Amino acid sequence: MNSSTFSSSSQCLLFIIFIIIFFNSATATRFNIPRLSPTGGTILQELAGIVFQSHHLEHYKTFYYNQTLDHFNYRPESYSTFRQRYVINFKYWGGANASAPIFAYLGAEAPLNEGVPASGFLTDNAVRFNALLVSIEHRYYGKSIPFGSREEALKNASTLGYFNSAQAIADYAEILIHVKKKYQAEDSPVIVVGGSYGGMLASWFRLKYPHVALGALASSAPILYFDNIKSKYGYFSIVTKDFREASETCYQTIRDSWSEIDKAASQLDGLSTLSKKFKTCNPLKRASELKNYLKSIYASAAQYNRPPRYPVTVVCGGIDGEATGSDILSKIFAGVVAYYGGNRSCYVNAPTNLSETTVGWSWQKCSEMVIPIGIDENNTMFERDPFVLSDFINECREYYGVSPRPHWVTTYYGGHDIKLILRRFGSNIIFSNGLRDPYSSGGVLENISDSIVAVYTINGSHCLDILLANKSSDPDWLVKQRKIEVEIIEEWIANYYADLKALKI
Amino acid sequence: MNSSTFSSSSQCLLFIIFIIIFFNSATATRFNIPRLSPTGGTILQELAGIVFQSHHLEHYKTFYYNQTLDHFNYRPESYSTFRQRYVINFKYWGGANASAPIFAYLGAEAPLNEGVPASGFLTDNAVRFNALLVSIEHRYYGKSIPFGSREEALKNASTLGYFNSAQAIADYAEILIHVKKKYQAEDSPVIVVGGSYGGMLASWFRLKYPHVALGALASSAPILYFDNIKSKYGYFSIVTKDFREASETCYQTIRDSWSEIDKAASQLDGLSTLSKKFKTCNPLKRASELKNYLKSIYASAAQYNRPPRYPVTVVCGGIDGEATGSDILSKIFAGVVAYYGGNRSCYVNAPTNLSETTVGWSWQKCSEMVIPIGIDENNTMFERDPFVLSDFINECREYYGVSPRPHWVTTYYGGHDIKLILRRFGSNIIFSNGLRDPYSSGGVLENISDSIVAVYTINGSHCLDILLANKSSDPDWLVKQRKIEVEIIEEWIANYYADLKALKI
Repeated sequence: MNSSTFSSSSQCLLFIIFIIIFFNSATATRFNIPRLSPTGGTILQELAGIVFQSHHLEHYKTFYYNQTLDHFNYRPESYSTFRQRYVINFKYWGGANASAPIFAYLGAEAPLNEGVPASGFLTDNAVRFNALLVSIEHRYYGKSIPFGSREEALKNASTLGYFNSAQAIADYAEILIHVKKKYQAEDSPVIVVGGSYGGMLASWFRLKYPHVALGALASSAPILYFDNIKSKYGYFSIVTKDFREASETCYQTIRDSWSEIDKAASQLDGLSTLSKKFKTCNPLKRASELKNYLKSIYASAAQYNRPPRYPVTVVCGGIDGEATGSDILSKIFAGVVAYYGGNRSCYVNAPTNLSETTVGWSWQKCSEMVIPIGIDENNTMFERDPFVLSDFINECREYYGVSPRPHWVTTYYGGHDIKLILRRFGSNIIFSNGLRDPYSSGGVLENISDSIVAVYTINGSHCLDILLANKSSDPDWLVKQRKIEVEIIEEWIANYYADLKALKI
Repeated sequence: MNSSTFSSSSQCLLFIIFIIIFFNSATATRFNIPRLSPTGGTILQELAGIVFQSHHLEHYKTFYYNQTLDHFNYRPESYSTFRQRYVINFKYWGGANASAPIFAYLGAEAPLNEGVPASGFLTDNAVRFNALLVSIEHRYYGKSIPFGSREEALKNASTLGYFNSAQAIADYAEILIHVKKKYQAEDSPVIVVGGSYGGMLASWFRLKYPHVALGALASSAPILYFDNIKSKYGYFSIVTKDFREASETCYQTIRDSWSEIDKAASQLDGLSTLSKKFKTCNPLKRASELKNYLKSIYASAAQYNRPPRYPVTVVCGGIDGEATGSDILSKIFAGVVAYYGGNRSCYVNAPTNLSETTVGWSWQKCSEMVIPIGIDENNTMFERDPFVLSDFINECREYYGVSPRPHWVTTYYGGHDIKLILRRFGSNIIFSNGLRDPYSSGGVLENISDSIVAVYTINGSHCLDILLANKSSDPDWLVKQRKIEVEIIEEWIANYYADLKALKI
């Protein structure tokens, strides 16, 4: 794997593997948490046959907003501003006079790619809703960098401190209010859309800023994967389940492989033998390097287990396809090769540059987004790897000089007893999930009220619903999921127009 | 008037007059905005016959919480903590096993007085609800001071910057979560109560932290007195209306008095003559000193126009009671004397120390709580005094070195089109008002939904409903208002218990 394959557009974010490679040490378990990102790497996307409709792109226009550095403080430094990027597509908008809707994609932990629509859901539904499409870049990513340069912004905790979700959604509020005012669209309902971390932001945005957004489509948002709300083991239980459902023998082979790796590594020149066997780009320094790599491939395959390719099936095809009698590690390697869709020059520890996403999300995880993912020894195909909060805190403190605040997300946004709390509070949120997505274990999978609803598919993967539709390969259940979401949003907007008519006009 | 009369308990806050005395200059119009405080000065309270039930006081216990300085930032400095004071009364609590409610008074711009219940509403209803009573002090007031000392905390914008409502309600969330956890009361519903600025905090707290508070009683909370949501002239229109309804001749006398003061001041030795006439503690330096003083007395009389004394009636009694043929200024002075309930050694510009409240609220107004109160020339008994935002901003910037953010409150909390926005979002807020309270002009006076409701009285004054009940003097309409509020809260709690039973037990 090399960097060019797995990088480069807002639709194709890097994931955990780079972090593991970079911070590969026995103690750096904090980074051993699967990335939250709407999509997998480029390769997955290409193979999935997702092609962007380039004829849309000419209608996008880029703007910059002078954003306040710190919304929640009045120190002189708080008043610093930075240029925050947002992109608007005016092509389909029905206009302010018609109070036509605004669909806003809330950026997550990645640069916005001006050349590519940030969410397929927006472009796919722009015509139907006559919607203005707005995509806003998250602070500290892409071109939305405070302190003059990325280097300065990421220098230390003193400059990173402003890099958090509360500030980010306040940014979104300011920009959306600005856009509505600028285009005299004060009465246009805003629907915010986001996936993964961006999905959390979308649902939180509706809860905190109901006066700015009428509703939220929160795709694959694991808002319950904090504190002790849901099981820490959810993520890798689902990875395991995905593989086991694809193939019992594949599951069993993977399950047996960890001790095989240890056994091989413990031999004389064992690491060298393993390095050859897995065609590593550089000699392995320890067995965990290989194990973490494999774990991240399986996690990624499960998280982005999308039609038409279904990477889990592909990996298992490789593993199960090895000649009868092959040893376990040969099978595992065949799975890796299959994952990439063919032979590469080398594997495991290709030298690579850290992406913005990797660096940025590493900070976010170590400050606020403390998602406790551990591995239980029972019922998984992995080795036991508990999440030990105190270790995590110490590692983050060592690295950044400040401690995570693991309870802040639930203090500020809630999450405990969500059904009890939101049953009679709030409205207009769709929590969409695919149950094959390991992050669905931290998602909202039950309707909470008439208008705070869960829309999930048994076979769906991470953020699948908000990717561009593909008529030739989208299965019926996905088409149906999107249709349900669109109809729900139509109902919100219809109710809003009725209220608007009754109250304001 | 001297400082001891108008100071010293959380129930008897100082008001604008001290600010005017201190910052008395032709340009210091920014401070010329009536104070937001639940109650008037001690004298008003004593005369109103409100006596605290001292037998309750022994049950209050004081605690301190290690509060985070900055909830929304991860700079190393943000992690500083300060001791935040809160007071609990356990006497009436039905306990965690019964999921008995918690009533929380959210402190406003004043020290908490440990010896006096912070809100009569809590003590009056503790038995009925078997409620745990919690009162929390607002950061930067009383004993809840960051940076080690009040002097340090208030030194400049760099230390004052953390002094704002978003940080304050995050403090409340942390403490309430802590209290619930400490007493295993996770299932106990929390009702937050506040008056005036504290009432705004209560309603905002329910909107931002529905997972912490089940409902809010927001008494006299002018949450719509921001931006251009409601008329800037509302406050002094109601002051005028109050006086005019009390007495047409009184209204007319006051209306005519301003030019009389100017006329007197413009004479040879005019200020000296005026000083004698009004028995000022120090010689008047300009006519505006006297005019601002009078304006503040009328504003205060109207804002705290409470039974059984009704200060507006008292002032007008003084004015109208002067012998026929007396000159206007003698009548005005008689009104002042009547306001204080008798002769004092001197008036207008008694030397005084600035209270914490005065100093603190001055910062809050100049940073975040930009309440644009102006005076129209039409239909009021005052001289024209428009609110000019740019002047206000410049004055604040000159004084504190940082600019106000006049649109932040509506960005963060909303307010525009509140009926449209909250009709299908949120629940369980009572906005209570008395229409004689000038601040009711910025209040919510219409029901928004089934459970976001307005409960107001025609004759009520500022925060009257949350003061201690007084069986001997409370008029029927006040008793009825409180009864309605209690019944609404009972309904919220009953619904909550039903949900709890259905969902959790």
